[in-house]
Amino acid sequence: MNKIPAYAAARSGARLEPTTITRRTPAGADVRIEIRYAGVCHTDIVQTHDGWGPGLYPMVPGHEITGVVVETGPGVTRFAVGDRVGVGTYVDSCRECEACTAGLEVYCLNGVVPTYNSRGRDGSPNQGGFSREIVVDERYVVRIPDSLPLDAAAPLLCAGATTFSPLKHWNAGPGKKVAVLGMGGLGHLAVQYAHALGAEVTVLSRTLSKQDDGLRFGADHYFATEDPKTFEDLAGAFDLIVCTISDPIRLDPYLRLLRIDGALVNVGAPEDDLTFDNWALIPARRSYASSAAAGMPETQQMLDFSAEHGIAAQIETVAMRDINEVFERLEKAQVRYRFVVDLATLTA
Amino acid sequence: MNKIPAYAAARSGARLEPTTITRRTPAGADVRIEIRYAGVCHTDIVQTHDGWGPGLYPMVPGHEITGVVVETGPGVTRFAVGDRVGVGTYVDSCRECEACTAGLEVYCLNGVVPTYNSRGRDGSPNQGGFSREIVVDERYVVRIPDSLPLDAAAPLLCAGATTFSPLKHWNAGPGKKVAVLGMGGLGHLAVQYAHALGAEVTVLSRTLSKQDDGLRFGADHYFATEDPKTFEDLAGAFDLIVCTISDPIRLDPYLRLLRIDGALVNVGAPEDDLTFDNWALIPARRSYASSAAAGMPETQQMLDFSAEHGIAAQIETVAMRDINEVFERLEKAQVRYRFVVDLATLTA
Repeated sequence: MNKIPAYAAARSGARLEPTTITRRTPAGADVRIEIRYAGVCHTDIVQTHDGWGPGLYPMVPGHEITGVVVETGPGVTRFAVGDRVGVGTYVDSCRECEACTAGLEVYCLNGVVPTYNSRGRDGSPNQGGFSREIVVDERYVVRIPDSLPLDAAAPLLCAGATTFSPLKHWNAGPGKKVAVLGMGGLGHLAVQYAHALGAEVTVLSRTLSKQDDGLRFGADHYFATEDPKTFEDLAGAFDLIVCTISDPIRLDPYLRLLRIDGALVNVGAPEDDLTFDNWALIPARRSYASSAAAGMPETQQMLDFSAEHGIAAQIETVAMRDINEVFERLEKAQVRYRFVVDLATLTA
Repeated sequence: MNKIPAYAAARSGARLEPTTITRRTPAGADVRIEIRYAGVCHTDIVQTHDGWGPGLYPMVPGHEITGVVVETGPGVTRFAVGDRVGVGTYVDSCRECEACTAGLEVYCLNGVVPTYNSRGRDGSPNQGGFSREIVVDERYVVRIPDSLPLDAAAPLLCAGATTFSPLKHWNAGPGKKVAVLGMGGLGHLAVQYAHALGAEVTVLSRTLSKQDDGLRFGADHYFATEDPKTFEDLAGAFDLIVCTISDPIRLDPYLRLLRIDGALVNVGAPEDDLTFDNWALIPARRSYASSAAAGMPETQQMLDFSAEHGIAAQIETVAMRDINEVFERLEKAQVRYRFVVDLATLTA
């Protein structure tokens, strides 16, 4: 067991404060990683406020982790000391169910094990990336391609996987019209992936304030949802809408923008119930779906695809000590487009 | 113009009363049909109570129509006097849009024209099957195979098409586990189709009162949803759930019965908004969808499939004069499994 500097919430709603945590000594297929960067996801705020149910405290958030391997257990076969690696939203799963054996670990039938706010096999709480080190079984570790910088790659581990996976699953590609709803941490990556996959991409954002960025990320069109005319102009226009908004929104107007057999996939993970008029679906056999992040093979595929197409997050690097202010700014959407904590700023 | 005996609601919520209506003289590709039977659909009650918005009155319901051709317009090529035919939920569409040209007329982008509670191309109100005759363009008329009786075939025109189509679209077949939620007019046909398509079929009904019927219709399993254990036993069990319940129900418990990538398709057309917890979808990338009836080619395919597999509705034939009592019994679900009006009982 090692003592590791970290930032934790002592209880629900508490500010994150410096602390130390323990990490297990690498055994078996464990990889010990020196964390260099950790992206800040809206769900970090949600979970430290019990938004997904009662949390485990003290809680160290952070599940968009990049770093360098500093030690390997005796059973490790895929990584060596010095390798540039990443860890995303989960660190374990049953490894035996239909989902795990299909490489869909994130949908493990026995319950995927989130990177933090969860318990390990020994019953001790798992802690996330706002810390200097993490120990993870290599099955849940991915390789960061050389051309991707570790800071801008960090958000790919959650925001990237969460947007890339549904775009692939719902066949975004040439000939398909894809809308990305929301141009934040997830949305600005969804635009890049949808464009790189060959789809015709439209951004639907509240205002046109980020239009220049959207077009630079590869969008073909950009519409403001505060303008009612948008919903007239785009009725029945899209094969696929990826909704990246975490606030509960009324979905009907967006569902009506789908073509026959179109799908709206919500990756915003809203805390509250959703309500909609079923008649927004019936007249065009539309679907509504939600997905989580990606399985491990697809997470690696997403990183390789990102390197190949020069895709990364547009980030603002912040110091660990500023995390509470960063949370506040994130809740006000005052970021273009993802905060990344530089863990070098976290000293014992 | 011909004067035709019919039963109509004079205004929203009114009892159906005898009246006469006019039908246009067959022209072009019009077929004049002597109506023999008309199924009673729950949406007939809904629409005569403005449940889908303000209705057109007087309103003659009925959109599960079978009968015999008695006259053909000069442009008719597919039907002759004496042919046994059917008319379903719609009688026209734009015929030019992407949906119409693909044979998905029910999803016409310019608005499908329902069999009643709608207006024809000349602006006059369309009237439904609770009448002695109807005049319909042959494009919206299907052939009833010889082996299907006209009375038990009538409900296939709506209830049959509405259940057959999503089963086909969502690939019910060998190796697939399909649940049918609700064992009423739609459900008892969905069970027959899902079984005939080769799927393993489970009925989810409030109680076990219809279990014998369900197994006779081809179900492999039958569970009561009033028993909480059902939801434990069947968690993650189904590739596809076809929900035939028109009352607004809380969907979360049913969504959680889906496997990874499973879909719940709601053909119940609830009047009110639906609410559910998005987390019933996320952990298994589940989908929720709704569909209408079938396009014209698939409606014919459904009838041919029904004939081939000996599928028809289990009906209770009723007299036109009893329609208001029939509506009351239908609202109480006192029917096994579909009322069909014998139009021979409607005299001038």
